[in-house]
Amino acid sequence: MKFLRIGPLGAERPAVLGDDGTPLDLSAITPDIDGAFLSDSGVERARAALGAGDLPPAADVDTATPGRRVGAPIATPGKIIGIGLNYTDHAAATGAEPPVEPIVFIKPSDTIVGPDDDVLIPRGSSKTDHEVELAVVIGRTARYLENLGAAADAIAGYTIANDVTEREFQLERGGQWDKGKSCETFTPLGPWLVTPDEVDDVAALGLRLRVNGAPVQDGTTKDMIFGVQHIVWYLSQFMALRPGDVIITGTPAGVAMGRPDRSFLRPGDVMELEVDGLGRQRQRLVAA
Amino acid sequence: MKFLRIGPLGAERPAVLGDDGTPLDLSAITPDIDGAFLSDSGVERARAALGAGDLPPAADVDTATPGRRVGAPIATPGKIIGIGLNYTDHAAATGAEPPVEPIVFIKPSDTIVGPDDDVLIPRGSSKTDHEVELAVVIGRTARYLENLGAAADAIAGYTIANDVTEREFQLERGGQWDKGKSCETFTPLGPWLVTPDEVDDVAALGLRLRVNGAPVQDGTTKDMIFGVQHIVWYLSQFMALRPGDVIITGTPAGVAMGRPDRSFLRPGDVMELEVDGLGRQRQRLVAA
Repeated sequence: MKFLRIGPLGAERPAVLGDDGTPLDLSAITPDIDGAFLSDSGVERARAALGAGDLPPAADVDTATPGRRVGAPIATPGKIIGIGLNYTDHAAATGAEPPVEPIVFIKPSDTIVGPDDDVLIPRGSSKTDHEVELAVVIGRTARYLENLGAAADAIAGYTIANDVTEREFQLERGGQWDKGKSCETFTPLGPWLVTPDEVDDVAALGLRLRVNGAPVQDGTTKDMIFGVQHIVWYLSQFMALRPGDVIITGTPAGVAMGRPDRSFLRPGDVMELEVDGLGRQRQRLVAA
Repeated sequence: MKFLRIGPLGAERPAVLGDDGTPLDLSAITPDIDGAFLSDSGVERARAALGAGDLPPAADVDTATPGRRVGAPIATPGKIIGIGLNYTDHAAATGAEPPVEPIVFIKPSDTIVGPDDDVLIPRGSSKTDHEVELAVVIGRTARYLENLGAAADAIAGYTIANDVTEREFQLERGGQWDKGKSCETFTPLGPWLVTPDEVDDVAALGLRLRVNGAPVQDGTTKDMIFGVQHIVWYLSQFMALRPGDVIITGTPAGVAMGRPDRSFLRPGDVMELEVDGLGRQRQRLVAA
């Protein structure tokens, strides 16, 4: 299934795509797509209602919103966990040694916006950069997982993230990456939360990002240094993973910082992202 | 005023201390002490009810809980923002150069526990360490604040944080500090959210931490490299601060990592923390 949230920011309604791609309203099943929904058999209840043909088109309940907005596919999670330098080609392009174990950072959840919302370039920024990533959404509480099978069981699904990053704030302003990862609107997420049964091979998904129509990132999850299940298992040794938490798993080569021209993002630029089977995003850059 | 939350984890009820130190029930004023309460004139409504003598003792509504538990004084915030190496004596003791601008990291909100709850030593940990800190709670949305006065206006109050940190995970396991800051129960917070009018001089508060009765940290906010208002102003240039967000402002010297014996925390150890005017905490260490 493909879950999504439709409506104005902060007032999204839950929906699921029908077989023909029509968004169907899930309000009768759950008030939102969130950790409680994922951990309380929400996916199974939605699957049953979808199979029974019980769900009305989302349009019927959403006529008040012209140019219908798609929000992030999960309500504000407890935490976003980022994995750094997790693609062989990205590590090589940025001149960094490949990590011997996952590099972990935390990104504030309130940076999340919808897949097609504007992204704000912070005041004083000259190095705002993009990172197309596969995002993993956790479906059940996970602590000290014993093996990769248990890690797979903890995954509710996948979506696309743009891990927008200000490189000067991240690398040249003292100490920790988080300063360049926490700016408002810096985590477009969506359009859909895709359940694992609909993803053929999460270790062989193409990821692409274009800026103003020009392809800049064109990678594959085959080049991940640490795979999705290893990451979930690994993180559970250090922290409690909770339903609705989001893990962004690193970006392939092609970010502005690693390109010869180092052409960082400017107001008016447009980013388009896609990951095989997970849909597309499109964001316009706007000065904060 | 001194706000607090009383009851089992996840089911705390809001309260405020009366003039004689008795907790008074605030449920008639607000369902919780959270960002909505702080940003929607909750403090003023509580002050009026307190002045009018309208509030019943919290005991009247909490007889079901023997050995009444005090929770964190703010419901799970959107984010915790940490400031690293912010005391001259701590920076010197750990051999680090004093930072030229604040070092910023993000700590997951779900690490918060009450001021007297157990702290879990992660499996595989040999270097779990303590950090007594002054915590700042944000009362209104703040973006690109223009000056220190605007920063002061954005502060709802103060409390105590123990920024528990696993030093091996933080410093020896690749890359970013967050891996050693995100473990479950690693942010005891409380006991009270103290409004600024009850804090004489936030730049001259003593902070103390004892392990098994032995004093190990004994500092003062006079030794902060970046003061509270500067930190709030500075952070607002990089991220949106929102009501209920918590900023932990760094720790003075005396952490285990900086002591000659490097005696890290063990199961059964007891930490006691206090900050002038903000109350006391007491946590027992337990193996995860």
